[in-house]
Amino acid sequence: MCEAHAYILRDGKEEMVLESVDAVEIKDDHAHLVSIFGEQKTLKARLKRYDNHERKILFEPIDA
Amino acid sequence: MCEAHAYILRDGKEEMVLESVDAVEIKDDHAHLVSIFGEQKTLKARLKRYDNHERKILFEPIDA
Repeated sequence: MCEAHAYILRDGKEEMVLESVDAVEIKDDHAHLVSIFGEQKTLKARLKRYDNHERKILFEPIDA
Repeated sequence: MCEAHAYILRDGKEEMVLESVDAVEIKDDHAHLVSIFGEQKTLKARLKRYDNHERKILFEPIDA
C-alpha cells in the first residue's frame, strides 16, 4: 500500500523504472533498487526528488 | 501512516533528523526535507539508503 514507484527523468519526461520500491541503495554513481516483488534494477543516477504523497521517487541520470 | 523518517549518518551512527517526511528535493549538494507537519530541514548530504519497510531515509553528509 505504502510503496512508492521509481521514475527516471529522461528528456524532461518521467519514465517509470520500477514499481513498488522496497529499497534503494546508493553506491557511488549507481542506485540499486529492489521492489517488494523482488525485482531489481540498477540505474546510473542520483536522487532528484522523493514525494511521499505522490508515492514517487524520482532519479536523474548521471552523465559519464 | 506511510511516512518514513529521515536519518543522517554521523560517526557511524544514524541520527534522526526529521520525522514523517513528506518530500525530499535534492539541489546540488543539499537535500531539502519537508515533513507532513510542515517542518523543514536542509542537509548538506546525499541519499545513502531508502528502506520502505523500515520507514527510513538515510542520508550521508557531503564534506566541504
